[in-house]
Amino acid sequence: MNLIEETINAIKPLDSEAARQARMRLDSLTKPPGSLGMLEEIVQRYAAVRRDPQASFGRGALTVFVADHGVADAGVSAYPKTVTVEMLRNIALGGAAISVLARHFDFDLLVTDVGVETDTSAQPLPAVRYRRVGPGTRNFLADCAMSSEQAKNAIEAGIETANEAVSRGATLIGIGEMGIANSTAAAAVIAAITGIEPARLAGRGTGIDDAAMKRKVRVIEDALRLHRHSLRDGLGTLASVGGFEIGAMAGVCLAGAAASVPVVIDGFIATAAAAIADRIRPGLRDYLFFAHRSAEGGHALVLETLGVRPMLQLDMRLGEGTGAALAMSLIRSALALFHQMATFSSAGVSRAIK
Amino acid sequence: MNLIEETINAIKPLDSEAARQARMRLDSLTKPPGSLGMLEEIVQRYAAVRRDPQASFGRGALTVFVADHGVADAGVSAYPKTVTVEMLRNIALGGAAISVLARHFDFDLLVTDVGVETDTSAQPLPAVRYRRVGPGTRNFLADCAMSSEQAKNAIEAGIETANEAVSRGATLIGIGEMGIANSTAAAAVIAAITGIEPARLAGRGTGIDDAAMKRKVRVIEDALRLHRHSLRDGLGTLASVGGFEIGAMAGVCLAGAAASVPVVIDGFIATAAAAIADRIRPGLRDYLFFAHRSAEGGHALVLETLGVRPMLQLDMRLGEGTGAALAMSLIRSALALFHQMATFSSAGVSRAIK
Repeated sequence: MNLIEETINAIKPLDSEAARQARMRLDSLTKPPGSLGMLEEIVQRYAAVRRDPQASFGRGALTVFVADHGVADAGVSAYPKTVTVEMLRNIALGGAAISVLARHFDFDLLVTDVGVETDTSAQPLPAVRYRRVGPGTRNFLADCAMSSEQAKNAIEAGIETANEAVSRGATLIGIGEMGIANSTAAAAVIAAITGIEPARLAGRGTGIDDAAMKRKVRVIEDALRLHRHSLRDGLGTLASVGGFEIGAMAGVCLAGAAASVPVVIDGFIATAAAAIADRIRPGLRDYLFFAHRSAEGGHALVLETLGVRPMLQLDMRLGEGTGAALAMSLIRSALALFHQMATFSSAGVSRAIK
Repeated sequence: MNLIEETINAIKPLDSEAARQARMRLDSLTKPPGSLGMLEEIVQRYAAVRRDPQASFGRGALTVFVADHGVADAGVSAYPKTVTVEMLRNIALGGAAISVLARHFDFDLLVTDVGVETDTSAQPLPAVRYRRVGPGTRNFLADCAMSSEQAKNAIEAGIETANEAVSRGATLIGIGEMGIANSTAAAAVIAAITGIEPARLAGRGTGIDDAAMKRKVRVIEDALRLHRHSLRDGLGTLASVGGFEIGAMAGVCLAGAAASVPVVIDGFIATAAAAIADRIRPGLRDYLFFAHRSAEGGHALVLETLGVRPMLQLDMRLGEGTGAALAMSLIRSALALFHQMATFSSAGVSRAIK
C-alpha cells in the first residue's frame, strides 16, 4: 500500500460526540447562547476534526509550496516566470507577506520547493525544504502538466510536509502557494471538478489586462477539451491541468484529516487543491476551514458550489497562505474564548429569564 | 469652553498626504498592487487618521463602558437587570469574553462603570474605573433617559477615558459595552438619527422571544413619538433615548479623532454611539473603523445607511467590544505587513510585465 492510500485509510469519521460536548460547554459560558456566531461553529468543527471535546490548541503551522508552470508560456500572467524563484528567495529571507504573518502570529512556516524552474538546491535557501517533483510542469496546452507518477509524488510531498508539521506539534495547518501562472492551472482544475465555465472562473491573477484575460479563458477551455478523457478523477485532473504545489496542498488536506488536524484553505488556488482532495476522498471538505473569499475570479462562486462558507471577506488575492494565516489567528482566538471564558455558574451570573 | 467643545475643536482634517505616501509604499511591496484588498485600505485610513505616513503602531486599548437602563423595566430583555453588575464583576475578574480577548491580544483593557444600578464603588472591583453618571438611566417611556447635564457628563467620561488610553500609548482604541436592555436604547437612537423604522432595526438582543420582540418594537416607536421634539441633534437624542455607556462611547469617538487615534466600533450598540458622534461632529465616521457586521437586528442595514463597510462578518452579537478586539488584531496584522514586507527593489523581485 502506498503513502496516499495509507493516508486515506487512516481518516476517521468526524467526532460528533466531541462537537456535542464542545457545544454544551459553549452554552455554559457567560454569553447569550450562540452570540459568538461563527466562532462557536469554528470551535465545534475544530473539536470534531481533532476528536477532542476540550479542543486543545498546540501550535499553528503554515505550509507553503512553490512551483513553476509550463502554461506560463501561454502569456497568462502579468509577471515573468522568474518571479517564482525570486519570491521563493523573498519568502526564505523573511520579506514576503506570508513570512511577515508567520512571524507576527508565531506560526511555524514550512516552505517547500516542489518544482521551481530554477533549481536553488545546490546552494540551498535558508529554511527552504527541497522536495522537487520536477523543474516545473509542462505546458498543459501541449501535453499533460505532469505524469501520473509526478502527480502522486506531489501529493506525497504534501503528506510528508503535513506529517512533519504535526510531529512538531501543529494542531492546525494552513496551506498556501506561490507559482507564476498557477491561477490558470487552478481555474482549469476547478472547472474540471465543478463544471463551472472557465469564463466565470478565471480572474485577473496578479493583475492581467483584458487581452490576457481572454487568452487565459481560451487557454483553460482548450486544455479542458484536450484533456477531457483524463479529468474523471482527482489524480487524473491534477496530472492533466494541475501543478505540483496544487498536488502538494491536496496532500496536506488528506494528511491533516488523517492526523485529526484541521487544514485551513487559503484562496483560489488552495481551493483547487481542496477540491482535488475532496474528489479523491469524498467528504474531505468537512475536515477543512475555508479561510476567506478571495477577490480572484469566481472564488465566491466556487465556495458556494462546494457548499462551504469562508471565514473572512477582505478582497485579498495574494495567495502564499496569507488569508489562511489570518483565519488561523481567528480560530486561535475562538479557542482562547472557549478555554478561558467563565461559566454562568463559576462567575455567578444569572441565566436568561424563561 | 467645555471639554466636549474643546475636543471637537481639536479635530484636524484627515491627512490625505499621509494616506498617499502609505499608498506609494504599499505599491512598492512584493505583492501585486492592491492584492491585500481591504488590508491596504485599512493601512491608508490608519495613516490618514494618525497623520503618520509610517503608520506606526503603539498599542491597542479596549474601552468598555457598563451601565443600566430604565427601559429594562418594560420587559425588553431576555436577562434580568442584575446581570449588568454580575457581568461587570465577571469582566473585572477576567472571565468575560472581552477579558479573554484583551489578554489574548495583549490589548489594554479600560473598564468603566458609567452608571450600573448596583453601586460597587465602596468596595471597588479590581481594575474597574468608576465614573458613574447616575444609577442607570430613567425609563424613556416615561421621561428623558437622562438630563442634558448627564448626557454631557457621559460623553465627557468617554473623552477622559480615551485621553487616558492615549496617554498610556494607545494608537488604536476599541469601544464596547455591557448593559441589560441597551440594544433597545441603541435601536431608538439609530432610528432617530437614520430614520430607519424600528421594526427593521430591533433585534433579538440577548435572545428574546417573539412576544418580547413585538414589545421591544412598540417601546421604541412609543419612545420616538414621546421624544419627537428633542431628537434633532446628537445630544438631545442621547438624553432622550440613549444610555450612559452609549454617550461615553460617543465621547471616545470624538476624543480619538481629536488625538489622531482611530477608533474601532464594535457592533450594534457601539454603532449607535458612532452615529451620535457623527451627528455631533459631521464627518466623524471617516475617523472610525467599523469592526463587524453584527447579527443583531438591522445592523447590516444601519452600516449600509451610514455608508461604511464592516471588516468582519461573523454573525457575532455579544457586544462588550468582542468584535472590535478581533478587528483591532486584524488592523495590527495589516500594519505588520506594511512595516515588515520587503520592497520589489530591496528583495530583487521583478515587476509586472508592461
